Amino acid sequence: MLSPIIDFFSSDPKDKKLRNAVEHIIGDKPSNLTLYRLAFMHSSVSKESTIKGGYKESNERLEFLGDSVLGMITAEYLFKKFPFKDEGFLTEIRSRMVSRESLNVVARKIGLDKLVEYDGNRKTVLARTSMYGDALEALIGAIYMDKGFRFTKKFVVKSILTQHFDIDTVVSNNPNFKSIVIEWAQREGKQIRFDITEEGSKHNKEFTAVIYVDEESFSMGQGYSKKKAEQTASMKACEKLDLN
Amino acid sequence: MLSPIIDFFSSDPKDKKLRNAVEHIIGDKPSNLTLYRLAFMHSSVSKESTIKGGYKESNERLEFLGDSVLGMITAEYLFKKFPFKDEGFLTEIRSRMVSRESLNVVARKIGLDKLVEYDGNRKTVLARTSMYGDALEALIGAIYMDKGFRFTKKFVVKSILTQHFDIDTVVSNNPNFKSIVIEWAQREGKQIRFDITEEGSKHNKEFTAVIYVDEESFSMGQGYSKKKAEQTASMKACEKLDLN
Repeated sequence: MLSPIIDFFSSDPKDKKLRNAVEHIIGDKPSNLTLYRLAFMHSSVSKESTIKGGYKESNERLEFLGDSVLGMITAEYLFKKFPFKDEGFLTEIRSRMVSRESLNVVARKIGLDKLVEYDGNRKTVLARTSMYGDALEALIGAIYMDKGFRFTKKFVVKSILTQHFDIDTVVSNNPNFKSIVIEWAQREGKQIRFDITEEGSKHNKEFTAVIYVDEESFSMGQGYSKKKAEQTASMKACEKLDLN
Repeated sequence: MLSPIIDFFSSDPKDKKLRNAVEHIIGDKPSNLTLYRLAFMHSSVSKESTIKGGYKESNERLEFLGDSVLGMITAEYLFKKFPFKDEGFLTEIRSRMVSRESLNVVARKIGLDKLVEYDGNRKTVLARTSMYGDALEALIGAIYMDKGFRFTKKFVVKSILTQHFDIDTVVSNNPNFKSIVIEWAQREGKQIRFDITEEGSKHNKEFTAVIYVDEESFSMGQGYSKKKAEQTASMKACEKLDLN
């Protein structure tokens, strides 16, 4: 990688454009521009690294890092915002906020679609669908490597979580996972069965829901009400089936 | 929650024992003992919160937070340790390190099995299996809330990642996902087929592997070699099937 000093003196107009764009997005001068250049490099334009055979440089490693940084900052944000909500709720709201679709929308809003470099000739459509959201995660990874945790947390909370999400709307938009799973089963011609068991004393009952697809156990959920156990089992089934 | 000051003056022998145990594990005096008390409270002994109806206090919220903190710190650790490995490798190694089984082992090694409070009479066996690993995640959440990011990162890297994992062993223990999936199909009497397509120019080929189970597409993987595409598709299939 180029050192920040070389970057600083670079007078390549492309670098200047990138530096300005990043400064506009993150609200501070980038120290190591190489990180941001990499964050916007889609794997379709990746280059074979000269250092180690086989490994190709693209934004995928930074995406891996940024995904976990974003997940953690969102977890803390929700943990503090909803002190009396259980972990099922927090998990669900987080997964809505950092879903592929949400991140793609936010990425376009902050202008990443004008920064991502990709090979327009290669029709890897499957990879393309989440390209901008992936670049947003990679950008978060780059900011973390460049500026550290505190800066990144501020950026994510201010410029992503509070600016682009209306939390009440996210919360109220509650998908009914059970009906999604049932519709899936009908569509696919599968037999589906919800099996509920309860245990515990009268005032402290805990329920377990197991979903059977064609009489094979498929997913399981627990909760203090039948409904919650079923909803959790259905949510897990949706995840497994990549529905939703 | 009790304030740290009340905690500090508490002379309850149980509190004293807990304070000493936490100090021994994290290498510093806990500031807010309430967080750690909560981290070791399994949901089988959860109490109805007096503040909001319905929500029961247990370590599950801290587990949600700690899981994401641990995931992120492990991501950064591997990102820096393996600068020339792709995101598929990093994802796989991380999932081995933070797997339910690994965390249960580490939790017992650092003595959490002596600290977790649970109701031994309730036979919620399913919940019990990961009880100590879950408590370790909750402990990490508590440390993060009590001591902040830098302290937590040091604790995780020093006392968990480097102390309890031999990274070379983790890496070399490479499961062959393809054969795991094939064995599963044989066991379940399913028909399985790997379909490989390639695209790109002679020197820049990219492969896509799709796994069909009973002629329905089940999972997909991409890579710069047939083998990698197949391995990725197989890994995703294993995840979907909860194998491994």
